[in-house]
Amino acid sequence: MKLVISGKGGVGKTTISGTIALILAEKGKQVLAVDSDPSMNLHSSLGLENPTPISELKELINERTVMEGGAFKLNPKVDDIPTDFSAKKDNLSLIVMGTVDKGGSGCICPESAFLKALLRHLVLKKDEFLILDTEAGIEHLGRNIAEKFDLMVVVCEPSKKAVDTANRVYKLSKEIGIKKVVGVANKITTDAQEEFIKGSLDFKLIGSIPFDDTVIEGDMQRRPLYTYPDSQALKNIKGITKTIQEID
Amino acid sequence: MKLVISGKGGVGKTTISGTIALILAEKGKQVLAVDSDPSMNLHSSLGLENPTPISELKELINERTVMEGGAFKLNPKVDDIPTDFSAKKDNLSLIVMGTVDKGGSGCICPESAFLKALLRHLVLKKDEFLILDTEAGIEHLGRNIAEKFDLMVVVCEPSKKAVDTANRVYKLSKEIGIKKVVGVANKITTDAQEEFIKGSLDFKLIGSIPFDDTVIEGDMQRRPLYTYPDSQALKNIKGITKTIQEID
Repeated sequence: MKLVISGKGGVGKTTISGTIALILAEKGKQVLAVDSDPSMNLHSSLGLENPTPISELKELINERTVMEGGAFKLNPKVDDIPTDFSAKKDNLSLIVMGTVDKGGSGCICPESAFLKALLRHLVLKKDEFLILDTEAGIEHLGRNIAEKFDLMVVVCEPSKKAVDTANRVYKLSKEIGIKKVVGVANKITTDAQEEFIKGSLDFKLIGSIPFDDTVIEGDMQRRPLYTYPDSQALKNIKGITKTIQEID
Repeated sequence: MKLVISGKGGVGKTTISGTIALILAEKGKQVLAVDSDPSMNLHSSLGLENPTPISELKELINERTVMEGGAFKLNPKVDDIPTDFSAKKDNLSLIVMGTVDKGGSGCICPESAFLKALLRHLVLKKDEFLILDTEAGIEHLGRNIAEKFDLMVVVCEPSKKAVDTANRVYKLSKEIGIKKVVGVANKITTDAQEEFIKGSLDFKLIGSIPFDDTVIEGDMQRRPLYTYPDSQALKNIKGITKTIQEID
């Protein structure tokens, strides 16, 4: 299954992506976690160090994606990337797209094109999961990085801005052939907040995660939420992961 | 003064940008608020409707920014844009860069190039303020939209991810000639959280804003924080705005 996590900045995409990846890996699934956010924070939710980002493979990227005249060739050879440039822990692997190295050095379009080709190329066996954590907002949908993914989970917190972005993401996701889109409400402290999100989204929720101080503590300690067995947020993400597997 | 607000997604950039804009406008300053985030949420913090985004001026953008062969010409004629495509309230104006119209329609590089040229072109008189609210994260620093701005305010909440992104933003900002960079701590509930941010950032804080339920309520009601006179967050942003004016 190819799964992408999307939503407004700060709603909890990275924490949820990393936690779902760890839950699935613990269940014995092969999991490839992919960080396409130039802020490169996913590793901390997984308890891994960042591997060499594919954006640092400049020669390789140029050789494989840039044709004469500066246009991008969108089908580079990518077979070897996951093995050579990933961090691993048992059956979980992490690759990161990379970052902006220098102010004024340009957009991340070449890296995005390369990542998109890599992800499209990957054929997953049954019981293998690709989990893509995107950068905040909607530009990745213009770039179509998650084209034809099986599932998009849009994370939403109780705020109008988060709801507006979630609905925009939903609309755009239908245009790049994502097969199914579901929502997850996060940082919920009251029933009214959950109802607000439910009533405002143009698509269905598959679960709700309470506001949980453990998430903040884990972040400050650089300790994955997954390592806090008593966390209610973790318990709910386990339920959501089960639902995702049933969708598969 | 040309001012840019930056930081991780969800730290409060848009609320703070909009509130500073309203405070300065109330003081009688001419203020141009600019939303370069494709999620286009700044208008709601200002209590305005979104004007026609400059990205919808496709013909104009193509005519003025794209040269033969697809390269971008970075000095379009822009004199007429602010008047024709802005929302106004007294001495406050808003322009928005625009959004991704359609999934898979590409990056926002042409729009970014156009906006960058527009902002570079604008010569401000004393007591005029340009306030740029950026998209989450760091790609705008690669694109150099805020090149040579007078001041960058990096907003940071008490989380390791927010601190990491803030320090990355700081490093990149030095490379695009931003004259001064300062930090603002947001969503603070304890002294320890403020100390954590102070001790983790590679640059100085000019103020701290408490976690304030009014911010959430205002967002849900689509009512600017500025219209809640008793809000402690608003009071602190007023103090921060005063400091910003002294920097100028």
